[in-house]
Amino acid sequence: MNGIVVNLPKRAAAEFLGTALLLAAIVGSGIMGERLAGGNTAIALLANTIATAATLCALIIAFGPVSGAHFNPVVTFAEGSLGALPWVEVPAYIAAQIAGAFAGVAAANIMFEYPMLFASRHIRTGSAQWFSEFVATFGLVTIILMCSKRQSNAVSFAVAAYITGAYWFTASTSFANPAVTLARAASDTFAGIRPIDGPAFIGSQIIGAACATALFRWFSFDGWQTNEQAAGSDSLHR
Amino acid sequence: MNGIVVNLPKRAAAEFLGTALLLAAIVGSGIMGERLAGGNTAIALLANTIATAATLCALIIAFGPVSGAHFNPVVTFAEGSLGALPWVEVPAYIAAQIAGAFAGVAAANIMFEYPMLFASRHIRTGSAQWFSEFVATFGLVTIILMCSKRQSNAVSFAVAAYITGAYWFTASTSFANPAVTLARAASDTFAGIRPIDGPAFIGSQIIGAACATALFRWFSFDGWQTNEQAAGSDSLHR
Amino acid sequence: MNGIVVNLPKRAAAEFLGTALLLAAIVGSGIMGERLAGGNTAIALLANTIATAATLCALIIAFGPVSGAHFNPVVTFAEGSLGALPWVEVPAYIAAQIAGAFAGVAAANIMFEYPMLFASRHIRTGSAQWFSEFVATFGLVTIILMCSKRQSNAVSFAVAAYITGAYWFTASTSFANPAVTLARAASDTFAGIRPIDGPAFIGSQIIGAACATALFRWFSFDGWQTNEQAAGSDSLHR
Amino acid sequence: MNGIVVNLPKRAAAEFLGTALLLAAIVGSGIMGERLAGGNTAIALLANTIATAATLCALIIAFGPVSGAHFNPVVTFAEGSLGALPWVEVPAYIAAQIAGAFAGVAAANIMFEYPMLFASRHIRTGSAQWFSEFVATFGLVTIILMCSKRQSNAVSFAVAAYITGAYWFTASTSFANPAVTLARAASDTFAGIRPIDGPAFIGSQIIGAACATALFRWFSFDGWQTNEQAAGSDSLHR
Repeated sequence: MNGIVVNLPKRAAAEFLGTALLLAAIVGSGIMGERLAGGNTAIALLANTIATAATLCALIIAFGPVSGAHFNPVVTFAEGSLGALPWVEVPAYIAAQIAGAFAGVAAANIMFEYPMLFASRHIRTGSAQWFSEFVATFGLVTIILMCSKRQSNAVSFAVAAYITGAYWFTASTSFANPAVTLARAASDTFAGIRPIDGPAFIGSQIIGAACATALFRWFSFDGWQTNEQAAGSDSLHR
Repeated sequence: MNGIVVNLPKRAAAEFLGTALLLAAIVGSGIMGERLAGGNTAIALLANTIATAATLCALIIAFGPVSGAHFNPVVTFAEGSLGALPWVEVPAYIAAQIAGAFAGVAAANIMFEYPMLFASRHIRTGSAQWFSEFVATFGLVTIILMCSKRQSNAVSFAVAAYITGAYWFTASTSFANPAVTLARAASDTFAGIRPIDGPAFIGSQIIGAACATALFRWFSFDGWQTNEQAAGSDSLHR
Repeated sequence: MNGIVVNLPKRAAAEFLGTALLLAAIVGSGIMGERLAGGNTAIALLANTIATAATLCALIIAFGPVSGAHFNPVVTFAEGSLGALPWVEVPAYIAAQIAGAFAGVAAANIMFEYPMLFASRHIRTGSAQWFSEFVATFGLVTIILMCSKRQSNAVSFAVAAYITGAYWFTASTSFANPAVTLARAASDTFAGIRPIDGPAFIGSQIIGAACATALFRWFSFDGWQTNEQAAGSDSLHR
Repeated sequence: MNGIVVNLPKRAAAEFLGTALLLAAIVGSGIMGERLAGGNTAIALLANTIATAATLCALIIAFGPVSGAHFNPVVTFAEGSLGALPWVEVPAYIAAQIAGAFAGVAAANIMFEYPMLFASRHIRTGSAQWFSEFVATFGLVTIILMCSKRQSNAVSFAVAAYITGAYWFTASTSFANPAVTLARAASDTFAGIRPIDGPAFIGSQIIGAACATALFRWFSFDGWQTNEQAAGSDSLHR
């Protein structure tokens, strides 16, 4: 649908805007949560989780029908490799996501009176963290692909709900997104990550996404079709 | 649909009632949260967030099919400028929203044994706050307009989820509504705002809403139509 | 639908079971919340709110298609007065709700090693509490009736979301249900209410429900019909 | 549907993967919650609840159309006894669930730098705990069966919402699942259970599930059919 009805500039704009608001939510709510929580990190992370997941849910509902609401380079890549998005459009999606991510971090930094962009010193490294990013991204991309022929609201709820869980069940709080990882390095606040720790996170994410895509190919080999699809879903991610 | 089937007095009543319950929720849960939280502002704001967003979700589900469930003058204005609501009906909507907002604040104040209406002394000013209100309202109106041709439940979830996020990711806790701003000045409690700080908030909100409306015009120029619409949504907001 | 397809004993059983699980959730999560919260009442009430609303949502989804999932005598009465439930069936509904409510409280008391039923000493009285119950019940019944021609999932989300809000925005934590009020008097724990305080709560609830029903009559006078209905909803509460 | 379109290996893989991610969420978020909560068990359990329920919701949305998303031997057994799953396929489902559960616990343990599997010393015993497991499982299976002819999203919301409540309203925090019980014995962390306490939990769960199945037979005797079904649901659990 998307490739046909909505032109690429509008879809890229949707990816830019959605990723920007997502990052504003991640970084902004992290700052607010830490400021107000009086030292109880669980409360800060709970606020950060709820704000992030809720905003993400809203954004997928709103922008899903326009661009597919990827907001995540590994999702775009997976959709590309499955033929759901033409390869020629992948670079525009990913560029829009990365630019949007930095714009969103800048907006959050300004709203809370920090420098527009400033490097994080939050250490996030080690094999447990990398394995966490692998698990987080594997789970996220699996969920998204399994839902990819479902109605848009189902996708929005599934993704937001998964992220709510993954913030807590992974040791890394589930970045699971290269654009998010790059941009969170530009805020030395609760949600930040040292720039030097970014590449290993992104590598783990790419491996997780690749495994999820391979798994999905096996699941969908020979085609499986649900009644919901037969009844005519809106095929959002197609 | 609304303009045809439900007459204006009933729609205005729905706007009055919905905005009143929304404000009762914002102010009442703010009072309750602060009373019980034992000085931990994060917990108070978490309760305030959850109660506000949940009530808003319920109200949009209930009143959406009647009036569109705007509960917000800038949303009404945006719908008017896009031709979704006749201009001649805009004043009745906005009057109902403002009157309802004060009625709701009065109800909350009375439930918690405060004076019916009393001026807030909560200082909320400065460029970071104003930029926050700009971002909050820009995001809110963007979400609403992008969902405006979707099914009503999608709108209710998207708006409630966005507000959940925006309470935390903006430095101003996301008023994003001139009627809400005016009425919250009439309760010197957790959710209050000094009357003198109101106009700058409202100005920022109007600019944010105008930018979102302009953006939506660009998005919808030449028309984009989703499969969901083609399949016949209930076109709640027109 | 209900009156035709599902016989009264099964519908009464659904009301009994649903109300029992609802009360187990209210009282049980109140006990658990207070035990674990270390004296922070806001955290205890937050747990109580989330557990209650979530359970209620699940129960309405599950039992809505059987009995309408009233679980509340004032809702049954309102549906009766509007012709949605035959008057002759109202007593069976209400008896099932009250019996279920006490069964649920007993289950919660036993799970947490208290006496099966024991009178509460929790004082809840005064005009602010009564006005709160009026507002809470007025809002609840308004939401339910406005949704009464909508799809069942919409009703379950709207009611659960409203209760989430009303636990915090009313000074009484929103009992809004005579069967709940009677049964919560039988547990001297977090969610309890002194038996002597019950009648005034119930009186306030009845007045609130009556006002909401009258309002709904005005709203639906001359009939207003949404596209959703025209498209054939499942008319759960009809 | 499932029995026809998706072959058993893929359905078993879906049960394995879903149960693994569910257990990773239960155990991982328990560890994270306890680590961050600074000794406030209510906050740790709140995080554990929200993460578990949200992940479960995502998994049911994603895998429901493939395997029915049981993730629970007593659910599989109930579906088998009701003819919704061929008996011959029940062992594969249950084996996949148990293997997946241990895989998920191992993943969580590794993510948080614990031994891959290590026996819990968390004492959970006594008649109040067993009665709690009976109630928890009775409620869970009742909800699932009552929803079994509904749309998949309704099931996912109902189950996740019920678990959210049951974590708080039962004294045992609602294991309600034999595979979960076995695997949680293999992590000496927040969510653990002493291996010796497992059998009594599982026994209580089986009795609860059996009672719920018997009750559902009575409810569905002579057939009751909702408008939703008549209108053609996707019959996910069929």
